[in-house]
Formats: sequence, structure tokens, C-alpha cells
Amino acid sequence: MGKIFIYDSTLRDGAQAQGISYSVEDKIKIVERLDALGIDYIEAGNPGSNPKDLEFFNRVGAFTLKHARIIAFGSTRKVGIDPAQDGNLRSLLDARTRDVAIFGKSWDYQVTDILRTSLEENLAMIADTVGYLTQQGRAVVFDAEHFFDGYKANPDYALQTLRAAADAGASCLCLCDTNGGTFPREIFEITQVVARRFSVAIGIHCHNDGEMAVANSVMAVQAGATQVQGTINGIGERCGNANLCAILPNLQLKLGLECIPADKLVHLTSLARFVSEVSNITHNERAAYVGNDAFAHKGGMHIDAVNKNPLSYEHINPETVGNSRRFLMSEVAGRSTLLARINAIDPSLRKDSPESQRIIDRLKELEHEGYQFENAESSFELVVRKLLGRYTPFFDLKEYKVMVNEPSVSGMNSAVMIKISVGGQEEITAAEGDGPVNALDNAIRKALERFYPEIKNIKLTDYKVRVLDSDKASAARVRVLIETTDYHEVWTTIGVSTDVIDASWRALVDSIEYKLMRQLEQNQA
Amino acid sequence: MGKIFIYDSTLRDGAQAQGISYSVEDKIKIVERLDALGIDYIEAGNPGSNPKDLEFFNRVGAFTLKHARIIAFGSTRKVGIDPAQDGNLRSLLDARTRDVAIFGKSWDYQVTDILRTSLEENLAMIADTVGYLTQQGRAVVFDAEHFFDGYKANPDYALQTLRAAADAGASCLCLCDTNGGTFPREIFEITQVVARRFSVAIGIHCHNDGEMAVANSVMAVQAGATQVQGTINGIGERCGNANLCAILPNLQLKLGLECIPADKLVHLTSLARFVSEVSNITHNERAAYVGNDAFAHKGGMHIDAVNKNPLSYEHINPETVGNSRRFLMSEVAGRSTLLARINAIDPSLRKDSPESQRIIDRLKELEHEGYQFENAESSFELVVRKLLGRYTPFFDLKEYKVMVNEPSVSGMNSAVMIKISVGGQEEITAAEGDGPVNALDNAIRKALERFYPEIKNIKLTDYKVRVLDSDKASAARVRVLIETTDYHEVWTTIGVSTDVIDASWRALVDSIEYKLMRQLEQNQA
Repeated sequence: MGKIFIYDSTLRDGAQAQGISYSVEDKIKIVERLDALGIDYIEAGNPGSNPKDLEFFNRVGAFTLKHARIIAFGSTRKVGIDPAQDGNLRSLLDARTRDVAIFGKSWDYQVTDILRTSLEENLAMIADTVGYLTQQGRAVVFDAEHFFDGYKANPDYALQTLRAAADAGASCLCLCDTNGGTFPREIFEITQVVARRFSVAIGIHCHNDGEMAVANSVMAVQAGATQVQGTINGIGERCGNANLCAILPNLQLKLGLECIPADKLVHLTSLARFVSEVSNITHNERAAYVGNDAFAHKGGMHIDAVNKNPLSYEHINPETVGNSRRFLMSEVAGRSTLLARINAIDPSLRKDSPESQRIIDRLKELEHEGYQFENAESSFELVVRKLLGRYTPFFDLKEYKVMVNEPSVSGMNSAVMIKISVGGQEEITAAEGDGPVNALDNAIRKALERFYPEIKNIKLTDYKVRVLDSDKASAARVRVLIETTDYHEVWTTIGVSTDVIDASWRALVDSIEYKLMRQLEQNQA
Repeated sequence: MGKIFIYDSTLRDGAQAQGISYSVEDKIKIVERLDALGIDYIEAGNPGSNPKDLEFFNRVGAFTLKHARIIAFGSTRKVGIDPAQDGNLRSLLDARTRDVAIFGKSWDYQVTDILRTSLEENLAMIADTVGYLTQQGRAVVFDAEHFFDGYKANPDYALQTLRAAADAGASCLCLCDTNGGTFPREIFEITQVVARRFSVAIGIHCHNDGEMAVANSVMAVQAGATQVQGTINGIGERCGNANLCAILPNLQLKLGLECIPADKLVHLTSLARFVSEVSNITHNERAAYVGNDAFAHKGGMHIDAVNKNPLSYEHINPETVGNSRRFLMSEVAGRSTLLARINAIDPSLRKDSPESQRIIDRLKELEHEGYQFENAESSFELVVRKLLGRYTPFFDLKEYKVMVNEPSVSGMNSAVMIKISVGGQEEITAAEGDGPVNALDNAIRKALERFYPEIKNIKLTDYKVRVLDSDKASAARVRVLIETTDYHEVWTTIGVSTDVIDASWRALVDSIEYKLMRQLEQNQA
């Protein structure tokens, strides 16, 4: 089984992404997790261009990694000056890493038109810089910027830039698809040419501008590259870098190449979520291998088949990457999925019992009205319990009145009067809010707190509105999803109505009822 | 230049995605947009498994498409019965499309272990079904489910399933990577074998479980496939289907293959955003070609280079797909785009005039609050006119009061009292509605009709709500988009507020003001 070296650039190229900015603490946390996963190289910053990065390198010296090597990143020396006089190279050495990466130009037009120097001087810049850093005891990865575009424009010159780096002592020649527009077959063919010509290790660094960065990286490995550069979740400038969370299991599980120790792969999903969290970006739930939906099945036929044999609609066992299988409910979901979930509430029900039929009919009706239970499992449970007579209401709504005044008298433009009864005792109260839904939320909690003090400890954490038949304009039906937590559990409820307030009310009531029901069960247990 | 047929399955396989549920109206809107883009085939549903889909096919018969052909999707006949007796096939015919797609099994193990029948019966099921549908005058696409996994397990049998379909008259053999785990080189090699062996058209249908669906689709085309199946934005079950928004420009701009008419590609970004909006999913801003970040440059060095020559860090010109370049650090480019739009209202304004600066500052402020003018050009125009003093208000709001009563006394649970003034004359009135927004819409029109009878002839045609900071729960800000028509023109306006009623009010007012302003201009002209 061949070894492929994984080179993570989340903290350097990934940090170029729109909206991403890591503190030194963030970087240290990510480095520790990458190291624990068994990543070989961690490119952690550009000390020459960024003072925050230099601070990081100073601090990272203080702790020892188990496995990974930290890489400081920089560029070839400036035009016409001695490497020993170059400020950026001095910063690179100041980072005191054993390994460094420097990028240089491999596309002739970039040398003449962007760098505005001669092709010869560019070769000298590469050779001088690699030579100087090697003399200083560094292992040097040479990132050949725009290598594939350069090779297509002028193959001889592109290869000369690699030769300059190799002869000066580079330990790895990394071929970069900087603009991200190269095709898989081109990557394969060009990487093969390079791998056959050089005895030093070959790396691949792809961008995702054609949505082919993962495939391009895999193709380069199949053509002879042994180092793969990428980022966790594929974050990076524009469309992002090659996504290591897909490349790693692709190479390791499918091609049998060792990227990280075999027992570490099971931590991949949690690492991916951790990096999304620290980066403050919404995790892509559709992501291959590490998304919440990656092994979620919706079609009834698919669910039946996966129950017979998971291989029928899963390319790998989700547990190998620390993920898990999910069955979603929907109008196209089969009866057997529904039954499995109904049985979680009442195990005695059979597929052909009249109660099951009644529940399924009612759920179909609700779905037709616009309810969608796959994201609102708590409302689903309440519907089923109510139909089975296994539910006693915790309160009755007598009435509510919502008043919205524009202009508002105080800062709050909305007020709600509400009247409920609990076991024959009536309660009438009122509350204000920032908008009518907020006022309603405040009012119902205030009314119920006297009877159920435990609802003080629940908090709404998410609120989503979706207009269903939007061409009916202001009379359209809306679907509201509410997520609530009691700091132990998180649950989601749903409401559908032509009126956004009423839809919110239904979801709110389900949210509270679900909490009270769980509480009651715990008290009885 | 070769022609590649594009086969969109957003409404069928895409609708299998977690969280997606299209109404019949949603489907019709998406079909119209796909048709306008020049997509060849639109797979719109499975009439046998879903009554809502059958309703769609009945309605879709009523309007004619310019270019696309609608496809109804189903499966081969059931084990052991005559196709003419199969209920699903009857539903498929009832959809009354000229083209149909049916899927059948190509992986021997799926036949014996999931379908639980003999390999011979499966071949008969394919042949009988294709033959029967062909006799009924249908052009049949045969989707060979799990073809690549099947070919790797038992190439002879996988090819026999294709032979059965081809001999029975299928117009296209579509090779499916159903589990999404196949590698690009395998796709290429296997597709090449098939394309060389069959004279009928070959299609490719990939899933993204290895994050390689786009590359796999491209490889199949390079190996001889001429039909590509996928979905807009790659939506679909688990990790999604192959993303047509990347495949289309990859094939058309890079390989010179004609997928859609050349002048239509410029609408790709807006179509992608439209489908995200209708699907109520957050558009992936990092998406290749159609994401907001796809051509966004952050690093200073990259920005300098792009200013020298865009080719230095862009693989294509963003305008060819209707997208645009953004510089995240410098506002230079943003400013010239904005200026072009401001000049459409006042051609005399220069880049450096104080009015331009004031407008740009205000727009940035509004965008920070959650306004997004790219989908609401009428509100944009009103903002600019107001800042330039080129706008006289048509009415003043004195106050409104919204009352919502639950339970409702009549059928309408909401009532609004409104007081406005027009040129010193006050008008107070009230209206009921199905929900508070509907009541407000009715009340403002009623109040204004006396002064501006022309607003009788406008109609809201679309109403969308998006919660912006949904973690603030019921106090979150919401963005409302309203689409209005006077049967000649269609315009869209926007409102943002923490209160859904207030946000709707703002969008409503803009919608009415825009109409009155246009009317005034026409009267003056």
C-alpha cells in the first residue's frame, strides 16, 4: 500500500476565503486537531506578508506535535536582489520551521506581464531562493504557480522552472492549478510527464473553479504525485481549494493508498465540523463523506433497499469516516420508513393495523397542506401521539389578540393578549415584542410559567419561514420551523398556515408541548 | 462543434434532496426558466409514485415550451407481470409526454438480492418495458441504474442489460453512477467501451458522493457520451447530483461543445440563484461559475495581478456566465458597477461626485442591514431617487394598527386600520385579511384607491420571506421580497425588518410607489 503525503493549507490558502479570519488561538486549535488526525504537513501561514502569522510561528514552537510538520510559506526572492537581503525570506527563516514552501512562477506570460521581468531572471529567482533556503537547513517544497496553464502555453519553460528548483535542492515539486480551470485528463497527462522526468517527489495543488479539484487531485496521484495539498472542507479563495475531506477517503478507502493512519479516518467527520465551527461558516451538510446528508436516504424504494443491503445506495460504510446513516421522511418515503418511526412511539403497531393506516393517511394530508416532517421530528411525534390517543394536552388556548402599531409608541411595536386554561384554571396575560411573533412567544411563555416553571429553561435557537405557494402573494401559505433547546436536547417543530403568525403559533405550541411531554416522561420514569 | 444534450433532473432526482419539496407552481416556474435557458430535456417527476407529479403533468400539457422536452420518469415493469397491466407504467403513459425515462437494474447483485428475481427476468423486464413504451409512441431513455458498479462486478451482464434496452428500441442508454463512488478514469474507460459497442446515444448520470460528479460527467463526454443528466446547483439526494451549473460552462467554454445556445449562457448565474430561491435553500456562494465568491479576489497581490490581466487569476471571464468580478479589499470594481446602475437613473453623476459617494455609503449601510438589491431593482431605483431628491412621495403613512384574533370571529382572522394622507387630505379605512400581511395589503390599496385609481390594476404575484439571522429565533431579522405586475411590467421590491409585518409593509409600499412613479413618468412623457 503506497503512502501519500497529505499537506493541509487550511490555515494559509484556506484563510484567503471570503469571510474567514483566524486568530492565533484558532490556528493553534486547528493545528492540534490536524496533527491528531495524522496529517503530514500543515502549511500554517505566510510570515512575510502577515505579522499575525509570525506570532503564530513563534508560539507554535512552544508545543510539540506528534506527527505533523509545520510549514511556513513564502515566495521566491524579489527581482534583482540577493536572497540573503530579501525581507520576506528573512521572515520565512524567522519562523524557524524545518520545512518551508515557496511559490514561483511557471507560466511564461506571468513572468513577462505580471512580474515584468525576464524568463532567465525568474529561473534565477527560483534557483537562488531554493538554494539559499536549503543551505539554511530547510527542506523546501517548490510550489510551481500556474503550472498547468504554463505547461499548456510553453511546456519547455514550465519544465525549466521545475528543473531550476530540483537542481537547487527542492524536496518536492508541487504542481499548482492556480486558476482552478484545468481538466482531469490534462492534469493526468501533464503530471505523468513531470513524474517521469524528475526523481524528486511530485505534489499537486488544485483549486475548485471548475468544481473538479477533488477529481483533479486524485488523477494527479494516479499519474504519480505523492503529495496532495488541499484544505479541510475545501475552503479557500473564490471557489475554494481541493477538499481534503473528500480526497482523503477517496484515496484511502477506494484506492488503498495510505494517507493517514487507518484508525484515524473515523475522526474525519468530527474534524470537518470542528473546522467549520472555528471558521464560523455553516457546515455544508451535503458534503461528500462528512455532511449530515451524505448518507441520508429519502426515496421509499431506496430506503427499502438500504434496509436489505446498505451497499445498494451507499458507496462506503458511513461509520468508517465517523458519519452515520439517516432515513428521511417525505411524501415519496415508503410505508416501511414511516412504520419504523411510528414503532419507535408504539412498538405494537403493525403495517396493516387500522391505526397505522389512519396515521399514514393523516400524515399524507398534512404533507399536502405543506407540512414537511423530515426536519421536524418533534412535531411528527406529537401528531402520532395525538392520533393514538397517547397524548393529554397541557393547556387549552382560549384566545389571543395580536396588536401591531405603526408608528410604535415604545420601542416594541407589537403586543399580545393571551388567555389560556390549565386544568380548569384560567390565566390571562399580555406581553410586548419586537414584531408580533416575538410578542406571541413572550406571551405564551409568560402565561404558562405559573403552571410549568420548567419552560423558563427553554430557548428558541432557530426560526425559519418558507412561503409555499408564493404566487398567491400576501395570501400564500407559509411554513415555519422552530428549533428549541433546553441546553440538553435540541428539537424542531413545524407550523403551516396562510398566516405567518398562526404558523409560528403552531410551531411554538408544539415546541412547548414537546418539552412538557418529555419532562412528564422523565418524572414518571 | 459537437452538440451535447443537457438533461435536467432538478424536479425529479433533485427533489429527492433533504429539505426540498416543490409545489406544482414551483415546478412550473422552474420548467419555464429551464426552457428559456435552452435545456434540451426536463425530467419533471415520477407520475407513478407521486400524485402531485401527476397533477403537474396534467397542467404542464396546457402550456407550450419553446425548446425543451418534458420527460416523465418511471421504472421497468414489476416482476412477472405484463407491461400493459402495470399501474406505474399506466401512470407514466397518462403523463402524456413524448419522451419518457425508465430505470432498470444493471448490477447483477441488485437483481438477485434487492429485486429478488432472476437475471433473465430482469432482462425481460427491461426489454418488455422499453418495447411496450416504444409501441405506445414514446421515445425512451433507459437509465441503467448502478451501471458502473454493475460493470465492475459483472461486465457481461451489465452490457446485456443495455443490449436488452437498445434492441427494444431505447433512444438513449444512460449510464448511472447511482452510488456516486466511481472514479473519473473508471468512468472514462467504461463509457468508452459502451460508446464503441452501441450505436444508440449514450448518456451519463452521476452522483457526488466522492465530490467528483462534475469531473465524472466531463470524462464520460470525453469518452463518447452525448447526453448529460444533472441538476441545477447539484441538488439531489445525499451529496447531490452532478451540477449542471458547472458542467455546462466546463463543456461549452472549455471544450467547445454546444450544450445550450451560446447567447443563453449569460443567464446561468441568475437561473442558479432563482432555483436556490424557489427551493428555499441558501445559494452556495462558493459554487463554481455561479457563486457570488466565484470571482472574488482577496489577496492584494491577486487583485493587482487581476487588474493587470484578469487571466492571471480567473479561468474564464465571469460575464460569460452572467457573474461578475469582486474585489474584497478594494471597492474600486464594486463602485464602477454601482455607478453604471446609478447612471441609468441620473447620467450626469460622476464616480467622484459627492452624491455618488452618498448613495454608495447608504447602499452599503442597507446591505449591511440585510437588503440585497440584486433581486429587487425597483427598490434600488427608489432608494437612489430618494437620495438624489428626485422623488416626491405619493402618500404619507400616519399610522396603522394590525389586529389578529385567534379564534377568528369570521373566516378572516386579521384586520388592519390604516390612516394615510395625500396632499393634505387624510383617509382612514380598514380591511380584513387572511393573515396580517394580507389584511395590510388590502387596507393600503383600499386607502389609496380614492387618490390613485390605477393601483386597482396591479396584482402581487409573488411573496417570499427569508429569515436572516435565524439564530436570533423569534426576534430575527426577516427579508421580504414582493413581485408585482400591472400585466405589462413585472417588478420586485424588498423590505427588511425584525418584524415580518413591517418588512412586508416596506416591500408593499415600494411596490405601490414604483407603480405610481412609472405612471407619472408616462403621463409626463
